[in-house]
Amino acid sequence: MSNRVWRIAKHEGIENLRLTTEDVPKPGPGQVLLRVRAVALNYRDWAVLNGFYPRPYAEEGRLIPCSDAAGDIVEIGEEVTKVKKGQRVCSLFFQTWFKGELEEEDMLQTLGAPIHGVLAQYVVLNQDGVIQFPDFLSYEEAATLPCAALTAWQATYVTTRHVGPHCTTLTQGTGGVSIFALQFAHLGGNRVIITSSSDEKLAKAKELGADDFINYRKTPEWHQEARKINDGRGIDNVIEIGGPGTINKSLLAAKKYGDVQAIGFRTEGTDTNVATAMVYNCSQVHGIFVGNKKMFEDMNRQGNPQAQSEASD
Amino acid sequence: MSNRVWRIAKHEGIENLRLTTEDVPKPGPGQVLLRVRAVALNYRDWAVLNGFYPRPYAEEGRLIPCSDAAGDIVEIGEEVTKVKKGQRVCSLFFQTWFKGELEEEDMLQTLGAPIHGVLAQYVVLNQDGVIQFPDFLSYEEAATLPCAALTAWQATYVTTRHVGPHCTTLTQGTGGVSIFALQFAHLGGNRVIITSSSDEKLAKAKELGADDFINYRKTPEWHQEARKINDGRGIDNVIEIGGPGTINKSLLAAKKYGDVQAIGFRTEGTDTNVATAMVYNCSQVHGIFVGNKKMFEDMNRQGNPQAQSEASD
Amino acid sequence: MSNRVWRIAKHEGIENLRLTTEDVPKPGPGQVLLRVRAVALNYRDWAVLNGFYPRPYAEEGRLIPCSDAAGDIVEIGEEVTKVKKGQRVCSLFFQTWFKGELEEEDMLQTLGAPIHGVLAQYVVLNQDGVIQFPDFLSYEEAATLPCAALTAWQATYVTTRHVGPHCTTLTQGTGGVSIFALQFAHLGGNRVIITSSSDEKLAKAKELGADDFINYRKTPEWHQEARKINDGRGIDNVIEIGGPGTINKSLLAAKKYGDVQAIGFRTEGTDTNVATAMVYNCSQVHGIFVGNKKMFEDMNRQGNPQAQSEASD
Amino acid sequence: MSNRVWRIAKHEGIENLRLTTEDVPKPGPGQVLLRVRAVALNYRDWAVLNGFYPRPYAEEGRLIPCSDAAGDIVEIGEEVTKVKKGQRVCSLFFQTWFKGELEEEDMLQTLGAPIHGVLAQYVVLNQDGVIQFPDFLSYEEAATLPCAALTAWQATYVTTRHVGPHCTTLTQGTGGVSIFALQFAHLGGNRVIITSSSDEKLAKAKELGADDFINYRKTPEWHQEARKINDGRGIDNVIEIGGPGTINKSLLAAKKYGDVQAIGFRTEGTDTNVATAMVYNCSQVHGIFVGNKKMFEDMNRQGNPQAQSEASD
Repeated sequence: MSNRVWRIAKHEGIENLRLTTEDVPKPGPGQVLLRVRAVALNYRDWAVLNGFYPRPYAEEGRLIPCSDAAGDIVEIGEEVTKVKKGQRVCSLFFQTWFKGELEEEDMLQTLGAPIHGVLAQYVVLNQDGVIQFPDFLSYEEAATLPCAALTAWQATYVTTRHVGPHCTTLTQGTGGVSIFALQFAHLGGNRVIITSSSDEKLAKAKELGADDFINYRKTPEWHQEARKINDGRGIDNVIEIGGPGTINKSLLAAKKYGDVQAIGFRTEGTDTNVATAMVYNCSQVHGIFVGNKKMFEDMNRQGNPQAQSEASD
Repeated sequence: MSNRVWRIAKHEGIENLRLTTEDVPKPGPGQVLLRVRAVALNYRDWAVLNGFYPRPYAEEGRLIPCSDAAGDIVEIGEEVTKVKKGQRVCSLFFQTWFKGELEEEDMLQTLGAPIHGVLAQYVVLNQDGVIQFPDFLSYEEAATLPCAALTAWQATYVTTRHVGPHCTTLTQGTGGVSIFALQFAHLGGNRVIITSSSDEKLAKAKELGADDFINYRKTPEWHQEARKINDGRGIDNVIEIGGPGTINKSLLAAKKYGDVQAIGFRTEGTDTNVATAMVYNCSQVHGIFVGNKKMFEDMNRQGNPQAQSEASD
Repeated sequence: MSNRVWRIAKHEGIENLRLTTEDVPKPGPGQVLLRVRAVALNYRDWAVLNGFYPRPYAEEGRLIPCSDAAGDIVEIGEEVTKVKKGQRVCSLFFQTWFKGELEEEDMLQTLGAPIHGVLAQYVVLNQDGVIQFPDFLSYEEAATLPCAALTAWQATYVTTRHVGPHCTTLTQGTGGVSIFALQFAHLGGNRVIITSSSDEKLAKAKELGADDFINYRKTPEWHQEARKINDGRGIDNVIEIGGPGTINKSLLAAKKYGDVQAIGFRTEGTDTNVATAMVYNCSQVHGIFVGNKKMFEDMNRQGNPQAQSEASD
Repeated sequence: MSNRVWRIAKHEGIENLRLTTEDVPKPGPGQVLLRVRAVALNYRDWAVLNGFYPRPYAEEGRLIPCSDAAGDIVEIGEEVTKVKKGQRVCSLFFQTWFKGELEEEDMLQTLGAPIHGVLAQYVVLNQDGVIQFPDFLSYEEAATLPCAALTAWQATYVTTRHVGPHCTTLTQGTGGVSIFALQFAHLGGNRVIITSSSDEKLAKAKELGADDFINYRKTPEWHQEARKINDGRGIDNVIEIGGPGTINKSLLAAKKYGDVQAIGFRTEGTDTNVATAMVYNCSQVHGIFVGNKKMFEDMNRQGNPQAQSEASD
């Protein structure tokens, strides 16, 4: 049995990605062998491949990229008690952050950099570094949970108290985090405003539960429009995933004491008068870095969307 | 134009309630004249009528009872800027608690005792002591908001962080607070377990959105059943409205760090080992006393149930 | 009896400040006449005088400047129940923000702009717009409380949970807010690091209770030095009062989940990669806008510094 | 080298405690050998010895009792990276609760029951199950940290926001938790009221930093006295360690929204109208079960009391 593995020979662009054929690794004590079925890509993976993601990288020259996988546990090592052979699981982005606050040490245990990632047919992970996913999800769907969904979950349920039918969430664009945030906020009863440069994508967002829509190409002062839509109140929770320059408008879109969730591995850039906007608005800004296993368990507990929609009938 | 008014001649039972005919009062500066269209009754009103609600009562011998009214503003005094003639409003239980924390002074400004209540055709209230209610509610429906709904709102959205599709709320019985709590928790995506001694009432609760049902007559150890239903997890938020004796089971039903919301004007009684249950369970117990105007505004923002159900399709 | 009053004829520099002699105003119902004994100046007053503080200004052409006064109540209007003639009081910066969250309407009720300020011998204020100050303070001392002290109080006790002997506070420079923050944090048992460009001022800060000192002229990478002093842990609470450019270093000085308190009416400017720093650090950034009357009451409750130092012997 | 070990032959009283001589155990991978130098006793140990502490007990018939030890690491197993030979450490009461929330599984990993305790010359513990203590503490002093001090720490710094010179803490009696709570609250600038039945003990509490004193034998209505001492305000944080019956008075002593910390393994008993007191007082009651390792690290960071007193000069 062989194992096809992608490795990065040089962090200088996609042409340095090498497909190798290797032995299937053996899980040690407390470890599991994961047969990867699907891997989801994040902008961070691109940054690692091109060398502009902050170092260190373990084993430069042959790093296995990517952090977000879904697959089957096909073998377990000794002393494994928490998962079983045959279970369908996701990888955890942070292999050591299970609950409570993120620690500096955890930053060195993220898949795809610094430590080896999941872009292979078989990878070995600690039993604590994987989590079962709901039955109604396919491998492809589940592979999107570890970073995109969990980040959105933290920003909509953990670092905000603005949850419920009296609250409005604004989410920016139609990337992975934003689309998850839209759906999660909707499930919690929030009114959801979404922005995009494409009316087509906004139409798709409507199907997913968004209530209000702003095409920021047509309405560059989208923060003012958002306040207007929301009876002038200001937004309770802003999912800020823009590049440089957006954060100022996000702060102005938010209501007094509103939350602004700063998300994502971002390109460099400058912002103007950010602190002044915060002062006048009594802003609460939160830096969001994916999430821990406990949050993942909470997120998974939402159950079958089928059941959910029946429940709300 | 005359004004029919109910007053309590002696706090010794319902036979001491007197219907009098009086002049319609004039609103002073900052005041409004409310044409009462509906009044909702609470157990507290019974306690006042029978003299076992804690004194003082303003004007003993002719107190106007009841706190929860809905009606029309038919006249406004000078300097009234916040409401208009013709608006449909509810009375506030606390006439002076608008935001932030409840103060001792506010305890002396509650309608129906100590100060005069709303069981009359016309009453004068401060402009700050009323609040508009949503258009889709009738007077009868709106009259139930000031105590029952607002208490339930505080217990499901203010004194808990357990809101969302990953959380379970348990609510006791089918009284006003419980039925509101069921619906509010449901709107926030929570799974809702309800208890009752009547299967018929449980069936009605199902129509209102409850997910799971325990007949506590048939299942006296309802707290164990609740944990079982909820995958053994323990309940995130318990709406504790029972008489003496229930609180211990509520504490045992709750998950570690779960919230238990102590609610209601209660009959006297004893509980056993309450503190011990709290310690083992890392409980968070909150005393709930209706709510302030800011919470009422949040509650009202839920909008039309019609719109709501469309949103969740 | 006459009243000398300073008014701003044009918002174009200090030469437009006019001293006029006027009648002493009469307090109306619910109002008090304050004999001003001391006025403290803030950078904001300079901005108003020079017209770069955001408008509107009430009565442009004759605005009375300044917000922070201490004095005596020399006359009270009808219906005044909360204060008495003869009491020594401070003005409140926000004349209508008493408790709970700041509202948009409160922004229009700040002394010295938009509404008339306190740079006069006699001013009339609402009884709710003043607050008694502790006996052991002089008028000059008390006049510094309404903005500088209250802002520092909010940033050290309200918008942070990092209070106690296990926590470290870093405060920037030796301006009013910073010096108050140093002393307040010290009273709560926090270790305090202070930065300044002057060794002399740092020596003075040591007398006031600071534990560690960084001359940021000698050590431009003060954020790294702060972490080093604090055993590499990162700072629990950073009082960010710098101009543009500081906030990035503040974010890097803070520990994961540390609080950064964005304070002050600031000059314009740009910051680089602010959001990225937040994400990696799980930052919690809070915009601080002075504070409400309830916070002022809490702050005043600290009692006599004499008693305080006895208590800690 | 031999190892003297105390074991409980039957959970039926102190005469069943047996001193045995055994081999010194060997630390396995990730484990350390602790040379115990001091053990502190808790009421819980008595309950285990007498069989009224909730079961299960591991190895009934030969359980090693007690949870709180201080000693030296004299040998380390393979793969031990977090501690070193020669370090002075305490045992952790919860051997598996390091951060975040307590889980059900952690309840089965507490020293002295269910799992074996520390009343022996040598015990083996996981490297994560011990924590270094500050240099200025003796073994005897350090042995009191794992339960008594950590419980007090959680109740004064973790489950309350009432920390600082504007807050008042009331602590009951002069047992271990109470005496620690007094000192911790004092370090955070809180005013401290302590109750006792002995004037002598109150005098001793004064030396430790308490500000106000109530002899509850002489003043049975100590809750009213506490409010009076505190300007009628009500107490911000009540450390409730009484037996049954105290909690009601604690609830009445607390200010509106005040915290009541329910602490301790308690004798059985009943309380009257507990929930009613909570409702009127908007109480926040927290069950406290010792604490996690992260809290222990925070507690240890207070540093040398010498340094502390210098800092406050």
